[in-house]
Amino acid sequence: MALVLFAGFARAQELKPVKLDAPDKERGVALMKAFSQRASVREWSDQKLSIRDLSDLLWAANGVNRPDEAKRTAPSAMNAQDIDIYVFTEEGVYLYDAFNQVLNPVCSGDHRALPGMTAAPVNLVLISDISRFRMGEDSLKLTWAAMDAGIVSQNISVFCAGTELVTRPRASFPGMDKMKETLNLKDSQHVMLNHPVGYPKE
Amino acid sequence: MALVLFAGFARAQELKPVKLDAPDKERGVALMKAFSQRASVREWSDQKLSIRDLSDLLWAANGVNRPDEAKRTAPSAMNAQDIDIYVFTEEGVYLYDAFNQVLNPVCSGDHRALPGMTAAPVNLVLISDISRFRMGEDSLKLTWAAMDAGIVSQNISVFCAGTELVTRPRASFPGMDKMKETLNLKDSQHVMLNHPVGYPKE
Repeated sequence: MALVLFAGFARAQELKPVKLDAPDKERGVALMKAFSQRASVREWSDQKLSIRDLSDLLWAANGVNRPDEAKRTAPSAMNAQDIDIYVFTEEGVYLYDAFNQVLNPVCSGDHRALPGMTAAPVNLVLISDISRFRMGEDSLKLTWAAMDAGIVSQNISVFCAGTELVTRPRASFPGMDKMKETLNLKDSQHVMLNHPVGYPKE
Repeated sequence: MALVLFAGFARAQELKPVKLDAPDKERGVALMKAFSQRASVREWSDQKLSIRDLSDLLWAANGVNRPDEAKRTAPSAMNAQDIDIYVFTEEGVYLYDAFNQVLNPVCSGDHRALPGMTAAPVNLVLISDISRFRMGEDSLKLTWAAMDAGIVSQNISVFCAGTELVTRPRASFPGMDKMKETLNLKDSQHVMLNHPVGYPKE
């Protein structure tokens, strides 16, 4: 299913939005088992992520778990919800729209190979828009942004640990300026962390 | 068991180390259910945490899950393992020794009421020692410290969500200088986040 969908993208001139599955809220091992399996892994297979796995991964990372209150799986400083997840695939880059459980196209092409980015099937790039903090000096906002990115990052790590995906957080990497250009980011948007994600290497 | 133990501390002049239980690695709801229940809660009962819950909470937060490699449930920038958890209880403050699954006394007395600290049964204060980063300017080290604190913070939030404890992360608060004095921290130690933790209010 996912393979067909992504193959479709590869042939298309323009990327189309990808409707993600609703999260499977009963999925995964017992919570403490996930913590016991948490590890940073540096190798993965080439197999693309299924829509099922990608959907649950993104929802766990920073999805809306209380729609009535517009609240998320990841807390954020003053509930600014400053962290956006950009999803780098072979076909292009998408922005995760948590409120609609959709991936919206940002740009086409394989940008996973930006310097310092490891070409996993999917690379999740966590970007804070510090303009969403309604108070504070920029230095304080950047501290909150780093904390909020760490929070989303650990949702990704724990989800992967509990569902037999592999990942690791990468805190800083060359090529950030290039990425801001590729993604056409605003000045208030800061690239914080990235997470290559894949299935275990055979 | 926990109540007897803590009552003993209250009568003692000096705090003694507290041997924590080995983690229960099969405990908790399915991982995705924990994410679905993740929420920041501002009220809790006065009931003290059991040793069972405190032990699992701290291990989930930043315990050693791969003893052979000295690695933790929480990744950290360059594996610096910069985040220490100080455990504030009514009886005193302890430092979590993850490698021995022990709480070591820091100072006696109820310091939970430092300005900005909410008096939950337990308050976990996440402190980074940035001298453990072997490279980088201080400003970069502080960014890593904030990310690493966010990572440990989310382990706490997700653990609580999956085990019916309540908590919320607090990113900045007055009284940090006072805390550095109370805990006799080094210049390289920075108070990043705190987590009041308790049982749900009836």
